Amino acid sequence: MLTNKQIKLINSLHSKKGRLENELFLVEGEKGIQEVLDSSYEVEFLVINVDFQHLFSATSVPTFFLSKDEITKLSTLTINQYGLAVVRSKSSNEITPLDDVVLILDGVRDPGNLGTIIRICDWYGIKQIVCSNDSTEFYNPKVISATMGSFKRVECMYVDLQDFLLSNPSHSIIGADLAGENLHHYQFPQKVFIVMGSESHGIRPEVSKLIQQRITIPRFGEAESLNVAISTGIILDHFRRS
Amino acid sequence: MLTNKQIKLINSLHSKKGRLENELFLVEGEKGIQEVLDSSYEVEFLVINVDFQHLFSATSVPTFFLSKDEITKLSTLTINQYGLAVVRSKSSNEITPLDDVVLILDGVRDPGNLGTIIRICDWYGIKQIVCSNDSTEFYNPKVISATMGSFKRVECMYVDLQDFLLSNPSHSIIGADLAGENLHHYQFPQKVFIVMGSESHGIRPEVSKLIQQRITIPRFGEAESLNVAISTGIILDHFRRS
Repeated sequence: MLTNKQIKLINSLHSKKGRLENELFLVEGEKGIQEVLDSSYEVEFLVINVDFQHLFSATSVPTFFLSKDEITKLSTLTINQYGLAVVRSKSSNEITPLDDVVLILDGVRDPGNLGTIIRICDWYGIKQIVCSNDSTEFYNPKVISATMGSFKRVECMYVDLQDFLLSNPSHSIIGADLAGENLHHYQFPQKVFIVMGSESHGIRPEVSKLIQQRITIPRFGEAESLNVAISTGIILDHFRRS
Repeated sequence: MLTNKQIKLINSLHSKKGRLENELFLVEGEKGIQEVLDSSYEVEFLVINVDFQHLFSATSVPTFFLSKDEITKLSTLTINQYGLAVVRSKSSNEITPLDDVVLILDGVRDPGNLGTIIRICDWYGIKQIVCSNDSTEFYNPKVISATMGSFKRVECMYVDLQDFLLSNPSHSIIGADLAGENLHHYQFPQKVFIVMGSESHGIRPEVSKLIQQRITIPRFGEAESLNVAISTGIILDHFRRS
């Protein structure tokens, strides 16, 4: 049985404050749990649906078996059929050395978007994301769920973007914009920061003035814009084919 | 002031049953309301934040002004700052004639995904989507919100997919798959149905056996798959450049 202290701990991890204080975060659902157990992340303990007990007989991680309803009560998901893992977070204030291609997110606030972007980066083999300090938190359970396990292969660092861009002149700074060069005819430089703006405001002026080249996904219909995760997918697909 | 009958009507439109019975649906938030007022949809009445009263002085549609909190109570959104519109739905059991390019969705269940896909179609000038009967409902408020107004320019029809595909031999049937021809080298036929599968199960076997050509978005990293909306964006981007 879980102790009251453990239950309290899990509940505290629903909030950013609790995650920061405890340096722990939650991974929920089958895919995420399988991925995190097979990663360099340190799993403190597991809470698993008793129906899947047989799958965890060989696990060295402390494991508690509860009913689906009991797990759902502890979970941030509306229904949690499988279980959750309490995992130690990694402090990553710095990513060094920088890869040739780094994705930069300026104020992306929606956890589902960040999670989906991490999954896209993992698909296209981009391993580093640099986020502005006001971007949504990497260890938010909604981010972790939306990555479908890709969180373990993609690093996110949170910085003052202006400072970061100014202190890394090694890379060209490219920004997605509604009035730039046609993506379909664009050749990426070898070392590049690809900057994506927030859902509602795009790239903020302080960052925008540092952009050296603006690129645009050509439009053939009438929608005003594309979602930031969709744009990221289309731009990275073009990057890999060009 | 809104009557009790109107309040009850709005609340009933939170559910699919209520939307079907009343042949009405909700459009929530600024962008959607502006778009629907400038469309062929018939708006029954508006409920608008009193702070924006000045913007609606010339509207011929009956308009009620309430506080943000009162509107949020009526809304399906966590916070509704702007307002909502009660709109007559269009019954579209048939799309004729079919365009050269039609997107086909087989069991897409997440309203956010469907809404985002509609917005992508609108960006790429694709005006017709055919959904399997078990796909999520077009008039779900989460779908409508996620379209960011594009719902008014893209038609969705719900059918038995097998029957539909068999009775329209005019179009080639192309399906997104994890083991098909490399998208980057693929030339689309002129008249084509592009089939996308569901989030969890892909294209179901009965539909899959009708696919004439499978295409795959090439992977450069390790993620197992891409979200269906992301895949749709990347495939339609390729379609428009090829």
